[in-house]
Amino acid sequence: MTRMSLSDYLKEKIAFFEKEAEKLFPEALPDAEVVEKAMKYSFFAGGKRFRPVLAMSVCEAIGKELEYIIPACVAIEMVHTYSLIHDDLPAMDNDDFRRGKPSNHKVFGEAMAILAGDGLLTEAFYIASRYPEKDEFTKGKLEFVKQLSDSAGIRGMVGGQVMDILEEKEFSEDFLKKLHSAKTGAMIKLSALAPLIVFDDYSFYENFKNYGEGLGLLFQITDDILDVEATSEQLGKTAGKDEKQNKLTFVSLFGLEGAKKKALETLEKIKQDISEIPNNTYLLQLADYVYSRKK
Amino acid sequence: MTRMSLSDYLKEKIAFFEKEAEKLFPEALPDAEVVEKAMKYSFFAGGKRFRPVLAMSVCEAIGKELEYIIPACVAIEMVHTYSLIHDDLPAMDNDDFRRGKPSNHKVFGEAMAILAGDGLLTEAFYIASRYPEKDEFTKGKLEFVKQLSDSAGIRGMVGGQVMDILEEKEFSEDFLKKLHSAKTGAMIKLSALAPLIVFDDYSFYENFKNYGEGLGLLFQITDDILDVEATSEQLGKTAGKDEKQNKLTFVSLFGLEGAKKKALETLEKIKQDISEIPNNTYLLQLADYVYSRKK
Repeated sequence: MTRMSLSDYLKEKIAFFEKEAEKLFPEALPDAEVVEKAMKYSFFAGGKRFRPVLAMSVCEAIGKELEYIIPACVAIEMVHTYSLIHDDLPAMDNDDFRRGKPSNHKVFGEAMAILAGDGLLTEAFYIASRYPEKDEFTKGKLEFVKQLSDSAGIRGMVGGQVMDILEEKEFSEDFLKKLHSAKTGAMIKLSALAPLIVFDDYSFYENFKNYGEGLGLLFQITDDILDVEATSEQLGKTAGKDEKQNKLTFVSLFGLEGAKKKALETLEKIKQDISEIPNNTYLLQLADYVYSRKK
Repeated sequence: MTRMSLSDYLKEKIAFFEKEAEKLFPEALPDAEVVEKAMKYSFFAGGKRFRPVLAMSVCEAIGKELEYIIPACVAIEMVHTYSLIHDDLPAMDNDDFRRGKPSNHKVFGEAMAILAGDGLLTEAFYIASRYPEKDEFTKGKLEFVKQLSDSAGIRGMVGGQVMDILEEKEFSEDFLKKLHSAKTGAMIKLSALAPLIVFDDYSFYENFKNYGEGLGLLFQITDDILDVEATSEQLGKTAGKDEKQNKLTFVSLFGLEGAKKKALETLEKIKQDISEIPNNTYLLQLADYVYSRKK
């Protein structure tokens, strides 16, 4: 079998995800269609789909059928999208642009943006608990719902966001790592573990847990580097915000070169974590891709 | 066995609920404790606990053990509480008081109120999917998560809230009923059905479905009447808002006497719906209580 380039592999996976997500996307009440429109505006805004692609890659690496992991991928991406909509609100980060487009509240107004976020978060659990509609997935779906809420809630993503908006933060690597392992790390780790959870097959659990944790950390370090090195146009969101807001980041802690060194060390650790997984080619390439990403 | 008065029955059930809810209430990350505080501020604010009491009453009427329905009750009340916090936000109803206390964003700020709402909604699914921690509830818990998200999402509560904030509304009974069956009805109906779902025992399903739907409608009609007849002090929230905002309500559609007539007709229908349920005494009294409530 000829192997595709990572770029073609990503394209194929993203196309499949988009198509399946359209089918699974929930419909609102007829008189409340505007909220569905607002949800779709942000969900189908051409994001990187990093979390779904990660889950799909692990799914194929453990030799399971892709179609059964798609609902979990859609649920994870819905939770991710809701968090972006709420983060962009005037009361939070007050950001007018996201993925190169006006942010949700700039188009639909604040009230609708709040409700679109609430809708995405709620419907994520609907999709995760309903699909795949087969009895053999009952245990896996229930465990995935539990892990999804744990990763997205006040011990995970919401907890990390709370840490991020605290007025008085500890300026240390320890605090920064705790913040990010909650804010972005938990959902990225869950993406790596989702296939094991949904299929109720925990082979190589430790490897994938470490891989997911490492990727989450690497993702955040490169995010901090890109905020300094990339343009707003490349990122599709406002660049250079961290320095302006005097934020605690890997760059503000270690300097640009120090952050780059951390990124490389993390990449090398990740590669070790999955060295013993049989079909690990794309998983290794995905780590390289996160390391060298330009947006 | 001597039967308690409804008032004593409610007191006992509410006390049990509060105690169990304290035990189940999720803990945030140590550095994000403020969000847990904000969540508890609104959750333990002395609400009527109507939805949990309803679920507990049905649980006892079908002869099941109360302790196993408590997680579902807590989850439903968390979803209800999050909806109040988000509804009170300046971008939504902009209400400064709730349950006789300053609303969440007045105490914790808008950003934290948004996150406290997000946290409550997310943790509701954590509790619903985790407890009771017994394999025999796997099927029931998964189905409950599905129904909870369906009732709370864009075909239920969020959908109804969207209808409620639309600029151009149809001024008709049909639209009003659709709005309320989504906004408040879906979660009240779910409360009546929760024990059947969690215990995976659908005896008397139609009766309880109709009972729950009827109670939801009755609850809304009396809400509209109380907004006219009660004081802000009695309600613990701003009274007389509907008329000031020229809202579509049962009173604005049918007048005060017309709304009262609707309430009585609804009460009578509810009582018929559960006339054949064996242990229906408290269920009947609960309907009377909703009909004649003063807050």
